[in-house]
Amino acid sequence: MNKKQSNEPAVAEPVFVLVRPQMGENIGAAARAMWNFGLDRMRLVAPRDGWPNPRAVALASGAGRLLDHAGVFASTAEAVADCSHVFATTARNRGLTKPVMTPEHAMARARALRAEGQRVAVLFGPERTGLEKDDVAQANAIVTVPVNAEFFSLNLGQCVLLMAYEFARQGSEMPAETVAMAGAEWASHVEVEKLGDHYEERLDAAGFFFPPEKAASMKLSLRNMWSRMPLTRPDVQTLHGMLRQLLRKRDE
Amino acid sequence: MNKKQSNEPAVAEPVFVLVRPQMGENIGAAARAMWNFGLDRMRLVAPRDGWPNPRAVALASGAGRLLDHAGVFASTAEAVADCSHVFATTARNRGLTKPVMTPEHAMARARALRAEGQRVAVLFGPERTGLEKDDVAQANAIVTVPVNAEFFSLNLGQCVLLMAYEFARQGSEMPAETVAMAGAEWASHVEVEKLGDHYEERLDAAGFFFPPEKAASMKLSLRNMWSRMPLTRPDVQTLHGMLRQLLRKRDE
Repeated sequence: MNKKQSNEPAVAEPVFVLVRPQMGENIGAAARAMWNFGLDRMRLVAPRDGWPNPRAVALASGAGRLLDHAGVFASTAEAVADCSHVFATTARNRGLTKPVMTPEHAMARARALRAEGQRVAVLFGPERTGLEKDDVAQANAIVTVPVNAEFFSLNLGQCVLLMAYEFARQGSEMPAETVAMAGAEWASHVEVEKLGDHYEERLDAAGFFFPPEKAASMKLSLRNMWSRMPLTRPDVQTLHGMLRQLLRKRDE
Repeated sequence: MNKKQSNEPAVAEPVFVLVRPQMGENIGAAARAMWNFGLDRMRLVAPRDGWPNPRAVALASGAGRLLDHAGVFASTAEAVADCSHVFATTARNRGLTKPVMTPEHAMARARALRAEGQRVAVLFGPERTGLEKDDVAQANAIVTVPVNAEFFSLNLGQCVLLMAYEFARQGSEMPAETVAMAGAEWASHVEVEKLGDHYEERLDAAGFFFPPEKAASMKLSLRNMWSRMPLTRPDVQTLHGMLRQLLRKRDE
C-alpha cells in the first residue's frame, strides 16, 4: 500500500464522485459505506467546507484511507475527465433525454465495463438538492433507486451504500446459502432411521398409535417428520437421551 | 387507512423486528429506511429508552405512521410468535448450527413464503452488540451481508435499509433500463440517413474525404457513427442547423 505513488489504486474499481457535498459527516459516512463493500476510490467536487475536513475524518473511522486518497476537483467535468462511462444517481431526469437504469442494471453495466478495463464513475449530488441539470448532462445514463412512490428520503450516505452494495453483491462469491455447522456433523440416514425406530417402539409400547386402523399412517407421518428435520449427530443423541430419560423418570 | 382496527395492515409484508434497540434516532432512521421501500410493519423488543420515544418520532419524519403502528414486545419470542419463518441478521453464527444466507437469497425466500401467505420476520440486533445467541436460536436462518472482510461498519439503520432494498428490488416492476424522453421522439431511420447525406455532401465539397482512396471507408465510418448515436428528432434538427450555420458564417 505504501509503495504506491499515485493516489488511487491500479485496479479499475468504479470511482464514486461526491458532487458539492455539504456536510463533512456525510463525506465520512460515504467513505465508510464504500469501504464496507471494498470500494476505495472517492473523488470530491468542490466540497462546501473545503478540504481536508476534520469532521469527515472523524466520521470515516476505519475508512480514513479513502479520504487521504480522495482527489478534489473544481468541477464535475474535471472529476470524470479520465472516465469513459459516467452514471448519475438522481430521482429526476431534469428534462433530459437520457437512459434511466435501476441500480442493479447500472452496476451490472459497470462490472461489464470494468471487465473491459474501462474506468467508470458514479455521481452523487449534494445533500439537499441532488445533482444539477449540468451534472446530469455529463453522464451517459441516470441511475434511479426504485423507491416507494409515496416516500423518498434516501440521504447521501444511503445512496452511496446502496450503489456500493449493488456493485459488491453482483461480484460476491459468498454462497447464497450454506450452513454454519458449529463443529457438528449431519446425522447419517441410518442414524435418523434408528432414532425413528427408538421413538416408534416406545410410543407403540405407550399406546400412542391409537386407534389401530390409524397406526400405520401415524407411523408414516412420524418417520416423515424425522427425515424432514435437518438433524446433526448431537441432535440425534439428544433426542435418544430425552426419550430414555422421560421413560426412566416415568418408571421410577 | 383509518378504517383499520388492527395496528398492522392485512397484507403479509415481512415484519422487521428491532431487538432491544438503544437510540431512538436509530428506530426513527429504521422506519424511514423501511418506508422508502414500502415496508411498514415494524415491531420492537424492549426498546432501551421505553416507548413511545420522541427522538424516534423526530427522526422518522414522514414515516411516523410506522412507529404509531409498531408493536412493542417484552421478548423476541413474543415478537415473532405469529410468524412461521424468522431470519436473524448477524455477521456471526454464534456457535449455532444454522443455515446462513445472503440478503439476496433470504429475501427471495421471504418473497416466496409471502406468496404462500406465510408471515415472515427479520430480526435486527441492538446497535453495539448485535443479536444475542438466544435471539439467533429462535430464527430459522441467519442472514449475513457479504461485506469487506477487512472492514465491517454497517449500523442498524443501514442493515434495515439493505434488507428493505433487497426485498423491494426483487419485486420491483421498474424496467432495468428505459429512456426519459423529455418530450422528444426518436428520429426515424430515414431522418438519420438524410442527416448523413447532408454531412457527407458538405464535407465532400469541403475536401474532407482525403486522400481519395480512403474516402469510401471514411464515409462508411461516418455513417456508422450516426447510426450508433441514439438521436432524437430535435437532435437531428440541431445537427442540420449546426452545419448550415457553420457554412453560412464561412461563406459570408
